[in-house]
Amino acid sequence: LAGRVNCQHGKNNVPRLKLSYKEMLESNNIINFNGLVNSSSYHTFLLDEERSRLYVGAKDHIFSFNLVNIKEYQKIVWPVSHSRRDECKWAGKDILRECANFIKVLKAYNQTHLYACGTGAFHPVCAYIEVGSHPEDNIFKMEDAHFENGRGKSPYDPKLLTASLLVDGELYSGTAADFMGRDFAIFRTLGHHHPIRTEQHDSRWLNDPRFVSAHLIPESDNPEDDKIYFFFRENAIDGEHTGKATHARIGQICKNDFGGHRSLVNKWTTFLKARLICSVPGPNGIDTHFDELQDVFLMNSKDPKNPIVYGVFTTSSNIFKGSAVCTYSMTDVRRVFLGPYAHRDGPNYQWVPYQGRVPYPRPGTCPSKTFGGFDSTKDLPDEVITFARSHPAMYNPVFPINNRPIMIKTDVDYQFTQIVVDRVDAEDGQYDVMFIGTDIGTVLKVVSIPKETWHELEEVLLEEMTVFREPTVISAMKISTKQQQLYIGSVTGVSQLPLHRCDVYGKACAECCLA
Amino acid sequence: LAGRVNCQHGKNNVPRLKLSYKEMLESNNIINFNGLVNSSSYHTFLLDEERSRLYVGAKDHIFSFNLVNIKEYQKIVWPVSHSRRDECKWAGKDILRECANFIKVLKAYNQTHLYACGTGAFHPVCAYIEVGSHPEDNIFKMEDAHFENGRGKSPYDPKLLTASLLVDGELYSGTAADFMGRDFAIFRTLGHHHPIRTEQHDSRWLNDPRFVSAHLIPESDNPEDDKIYFFFRENAIDGEHTGKATHARIGQICKNDFGGHRSLVNKWTTFLKARLICSVPGPNGIDTHFDELQDVFLMNSKDPKNPIVYGVFTTSSNIFKGSAVCTYSMTDVRRVFLGPYAHRDGPNYQWVPYQGRVPYPRPGTCPSKTFGGFDSTKDLPDEVITFARSHPAMYNPVFPINNRPIMIKTDVDYQFTQIVVDRVDAEDGQYDVMFIGTDIGTVLKVVSIPKETWHELEEVLLEEMTVFREPTVISAMKISTKQQQLYIGSVTGVSQLPLHRCDVYGKACAECCLA
Repeated sequence: LAGRVNCQHGKNNVPRLKLSYKEMLESNNIINFNGLVNSSSYHTFLLDEERSRLYVGAKDHIFSFNLVNIKEYQKIVWPVSHSRRDECKWAGKDILRECANFIKVLKAYNQTHLYACGTGAFHPVCAYIEVGSHPEDNIFKMEDAHFENGRGKSPYDPKLLTASLLVDGELYSGTAADFMGRDFAIFRTLGHHHPIRTEQHDSRWLNDPRFVSAHLIPESDNPEDDKIYFFFRENAIDGEHTGKATHARIGQICKNDFGGHRSLVNKWTTFLKARLICSVPGPNGIDTHFDELQDVFLMNSKDPKNPIVYGVFTTSSNIFKGSAVCTYSMTDVRRVFLGPYAHRDGPNYQWVPYQGRVPYPRPGTCPSKTFGGFDSTKDLPDEVITFARSHPAMYNPVFPINNRPIMIKTDVDYQFTQIVVDRVDAEDGQYDVMFIGTDIGTVLKVVSIPKETWHELEEVLLEEMTVFREPTVISAMKISTKQQQLYIGSVTGVSQLPLHRCDVYGKACAECCLA
Repeated sequence: LAGRVNCQHGKNNVPRLKLSYKEMLESNNIINFNGLVNSSSYHTFLLDEERSRLYVGAKDHIFSFNLVNIKEYQKIVWPVSHSRRDECKWAGKDILRECANFIKVLKAYNQTHLYACGTGAFHPVCAYIEVGSHPEDNIFKMEDAHFENGRGKSPYDPKLLTASLLVDGELYSGTAADFMGRDFAIFRTLGHHHPIRTEQHDSRWLNDPRFVSAHLIPESDNPEDDKIYFFFRENAIDGEHTGKATHARIGQICKNDFGGHRSLVNKWTTFLKARLICSVPGPNGIDTHFDELQDVFLMNSKDPKNPIVYGVFTTSSNIFKGSAVCTYSMTDVRRVFLGPYAHRDGPNYQWVPYQGRVPYPRPGTCPSKTFGGFDSTKDLPDEVITFARSHPAMYNPVFPINNRPIMIKTDVDYQFTQIVVDRVDAEDGQYDVMFIGTDIGTVLKVVSIPKETWHELEEVLLEEMTVFREPTVISAMKISTKQQQLYIGSVTGVSQLPLHRCDVYGKACAECCLA
């Protein structure tokens, strides 16, 4: 790789190129949608490469942007009724910031429709959006006759975070299902089956979680083993940490989980969670932790079972502000889920690895004909259900690849909020280029360069670009590899950038990525 | 207070006055002793206001500096023998940095003598230093005929920290008593009684402690209640914290503790310890902790039972470096020692406040005729000894005054190491002026100014002075209120500064301290 020496110069703190918003505009490197007067909160992104659209859920609106140029868009206005808004106001909520329909869920439902849910002024509601069978149909309209209750799909409170996934007509959603925002759960709704959720009123399962994202990752070539993974942060369980603390988590459920028969009825029987560690080792054995998981990006590899998980974390301290990116392998995640369960004998006990006999089939395993012979979670023996109910957490945490962050950023006046990653083929190999959004409306472009061996990577901060006129928290990011464009959302609007400006330069990565 | 507005400007980060080493020399604000070629490590200070001397223990030397001008000094050369040095070398130690006599203990023994102990090339040794009955005697010589074993007084390894106190001919010393530096304990040696120490091989008592300082603080007007307090940092006890962590501690023992009769024979029966918290509350309930206690200064008030404890702390992280000053009241310390003991039923249990019956007399209480009727710790009932042995730690921590640091410093390239405090009478009241030494050879002069009420203080950083030619860790500081001078030690030498330059200015604190 040419320019390696220069790369090391740019290491960690000083970007090779720093572009103000004005410079971005002047160099034609940015296209902006500056928001509508009666809307805001452009936070919920759905990318549709086939139709070449970016769908965006916002306050009282859903947009369909042309991926080539987001200045070209269609919109659906979806406000709440006057009576609904008044009810919300009477409940003591803020008219402008709370008593509107903030779109929190926007997913592809089938070949012709999207599924969208909003807070509905503290009364969640869902609807189907017709987008047509073919890109050229150019259809974008709401099925007005068919609204659905949004409880367990969208939160009531627009401030709460939600993570959702729609697969085979079923919606998996990590959200709060009550007006007060206390009953957090991972739900499965829609479809023909009875809704399923996590156990209620049990802080061992979920402890004030803030959901970040949800993904389906196959476990084997047999679709029966498919698992849904939720990424979230939550309060450390009582006795797990002295004082209050946040832990980052990965949670799993089986796609074919239909709940228990006598116990855990309509509750997940295969839910397990593990802590995600993102920390820097200290010379004295005392590690510096980044526990506030902010965003997750899955970089697919050739093997769909083993994407690389990129996580963006910040510190929990208000005195020491810092951010880090850690990567995880699914092999490590699966090893932890196959390891010891966290166990304690009572409230005054410590959490220890469970040493006793684990019932068969091992809780967390998906029912499958090929393996174990249990067709459905409803057939699971009672002792499996009982064990699963009281052992939702794994004892071992998942450590990052190489046991440390691939990037940390401290002593700056911003923190990371979002990440997407682009894999670039260069003459001398593949490079992962990270685009990291911050809470001050900037995007960092960072490349991992192998350092001596391919196992050790060095991060080079290539560019720091201001992508919004005013400093604002970047709350959504999508990458279109087809269009080679990046889309960025915030409270105020949506911005679009080219990923690279390689055409100007040569072909090799040194000349391209480092441009 | 005049200049209040300006004070607020100087808050936290920017000093009102920054003086380089050159400026300090040019303005005649500093006197230096730049060390001897064959010595170093000017770390062990003993102030003698009566004789107007500063005694300093260093490598192979003990110095007696004139407090008025440290350029005028006497010295005692106290090296190790060749055979001792060779033995040390054969044991694999470094000739220059380890195989010498590093003076670690230097205390007033009686009206005519000091007591000094050094590492003696990994073979601790002590001696008496004659200083004469009267200041004008001008005597400073070692009693060569009378060496004593230094085990349990000075550590073997010069890198280890030691805290000691000599009262009534008895030496209290927190140190390591073995070659390997593993057997840490608080000892009482010298005097006519059998030596006493903390329980051995019990991490509940001491867990790899690094001792900071020792003080006698009376508990009542009855000297039988006198207690010795040790300040140290140590590893958090197993189960007290997830992962490795350091906790700051205050430990107590009774001066009249002579150990148990059947159990804890020649061990402290009144040892108790509590955690010292120095943390900043976070908006999310997650506090930022400063756990690495570096130094302690006791500011005496009218009531000798209730000095204000100033503690200097740094962070345990190597990524986020910061320092803080917290103050503690002895009333809070005593309340914690009278509160619940930390208890757990077994290794897999959590630490909980002990709820059962506490035996009488309450462990930690000093034997006293006036109270309880036990003349000696040897008369204590077996159940008291048994309880004391297994409950050395208190459940509640000691929180700082106002529940937060009076000063924190982050985002700078240095950390605090030492503190002394001067109480200044000004026209508008009393002010505490802190002199804080750093690990880069600078001294910060900081004043606490009441903010609205006297209960809330605001810190103003007045001066930042470089007191050593080269950046070096400040490892010792003493204040002479009589001479109104500050003495500072490091590896390379000793420096002397005037506390204030008030004579130039007016009388009121605003004009003086803020000069």
